Amino acid sequence: VSRPIGVFDSGVGGLTVLKALRQRLPSQDFIYFSDTARVPYGRKPREMVREFSREITAFLEQLDVVGIVIACNTASACALPDLREETAVPLWGVIDPGVEAACRATGSGCVGVIGTKGTIASGAYQDKLRAAGLQVWARACPMFVHLVEEGLADSEDARVLARHYLRDMPRIDTLILGCTHYPVLVPVIQEVAGAAVTLVSSAEVTAEVVAASVVRNGPSNSAGRVTHYVTGGVHAYQHTAETIGGVEGKVIPLDVTRLADAGVAVRGTPA
Amino acid sequence: VSRPIGVFDSGVGGLTVLKALRQRLPSQDFIYFSDTARVPYGRKPREMVREFSREITAFLEQLDVVGIVIACNTASACALPDLREETAVPLWGVIDPGVEAACRATGSGCVGVIGTKGTIASGAYQDKLRAAGLQVWARACPMFVHLVEEGLADSEDARVLARHYLRDMPRIDTLILGCTHYPVLVPVIQEVAGAAVTLVSSAEVTAEVVAASVVRNGPSNSAGRVTHYVTGGVHAYQHTAETIGGVEGKVIPLDVTRLADAGVAVRGTPA
Repeated sequence: VSRPIGVFDSGVGGLTVLKALRQRLPSQDFIYFSDTARVPYGRKPREMVREFSREITAFLEQLDVVGIVIACNTASACALPDLREETAVPLWGVIDPGVEAACRATGSGCVGVIGTKGTIASGAYQDKLRAAGLQVWARACPMFVHLVEEGLADSEDARVLARHYLRDMPRIDTLILGCTHYPVLVPVIQEVAGAAVTLVSSAEVTAEVVAASVVRNGPSNSAGRVTHYVTGGVHAYQHTAETIGGVEGKVIPLDVTRLADAGVAVRGTPA
Repeated sequence: VSRPIGVFDSGVGGLTVLKALRQRLPSQDFIYFSDTARVPYGRKPREMVREFSREITAFLEQLDVVGIVIACNTASACALPDLREETAVPLWGVIDPGVEAACRATGSGCVGVIGTKGTIASGAYQDKLRAAGLQVWARACPMFVHLVEEGLADSEDARVLARHYLRDMPRIDTLILGCTHYPVLVPVIQEVAGAAVTLVSSAEVTAEVVAASVVRNGPSNSAGRVTHYVTGGVHAYQHTAETIGGVEGKVIPLDVTRLADAGVAVRGTPA
């Protein structure tokens, strides 16, 4: 039996990364951890996000994953460097793939990045883009994630907020969608940003990087399985997962208040 | 020992009701149940909100409360009529007090109500206001609750959204804030609606109704205590409770996936 890849996110946004990964690695098993009880991470203190990420990474390691994808921009920005030192298996974040894709995409050298308050305040994207010699415009869009969670991605509410957040965007040719929820908002963001701007989705480019670096299981006819561990409500989660599609699997509820001992609680549960 | 009053909400919004209740009943004990693991209720199916409310009401009854305040507009709108038939102790919702206050406040007979998608779609406010002979304008403002949760109540984001939601508000003289989060947005809503519009907060008027109908414990120098049961993260909850103030008390985390058996788990815990 091959070992699964762990993927975690504060909520459902990372399912876009999981879907992109499964398209590239169809026979690979995955464990997806969705911390919906504590979503969103985007406005929480850096230290709190780091602690949550540490708990979840430890939990996934106990399930014998071969590597872990932090499919959450806030957690990647706040926790990845520390966690790399503490974790035995490879860790992949979403920031570096997004930066590399933007470097490839830009002609003018003027790029932008949008994300949660936590991601933008961390400066993780900006520092790396500037280190690559690019000019950077950045804007926190704290309400965008709620548009997606509310099912309002294609609404007047979304257009009003997109025009508000991008109102003073300078002339850039590339815009990084620095939040795994934002791919759902692409039609509205493209309309407001203009057709000349290339949108870079960190979900897609992260999946490419991970797929390129894992050892394939070899040709197989058996489809890989997904197991979801969810700290919040299961019904709403299943509904969202079905809407995104391509991520079907068993959903196991998990008590977030006992996450530290959860390795015991789930022992014997098929992953 | 006097029996506590139970108060529940999908999240932190109902703390504004609890605060208003404690100002009126300072020696009364309260149990506040915050279902932060499954917040928000506002966009969830009616049947799901009803099931959550039923679980929480049963849980509070096991803790021997003298009555239960449903300090959540969505739960009041979707679940209160059914629950009244199933529950032995008195239940108070936030809809009727808001309707009665609007009837008292209006001179022109033209009133408005804003709330979550679930509350507005239920028609609970509109039906009762129309039955009282008033003309009613109603608007769901799904992003308002997120402004408050994000700490953006006094931001340009809030002004942009308030102008958007109230853009075609007709000439009314009274506007019901049909969501316990909205009192925090009063400055922005008043600015956009205009000084001539009276804003009715369901938190305040509900507290008045409950305080008028419970038997006082009699004169007492001892301050009433609050016990909080919280299904989601405790740290973020405590931070919000401290910001609101006047609701200090012990915070007990609760596993929402085992809420049905939680009466056993909390037996012996001082309430």
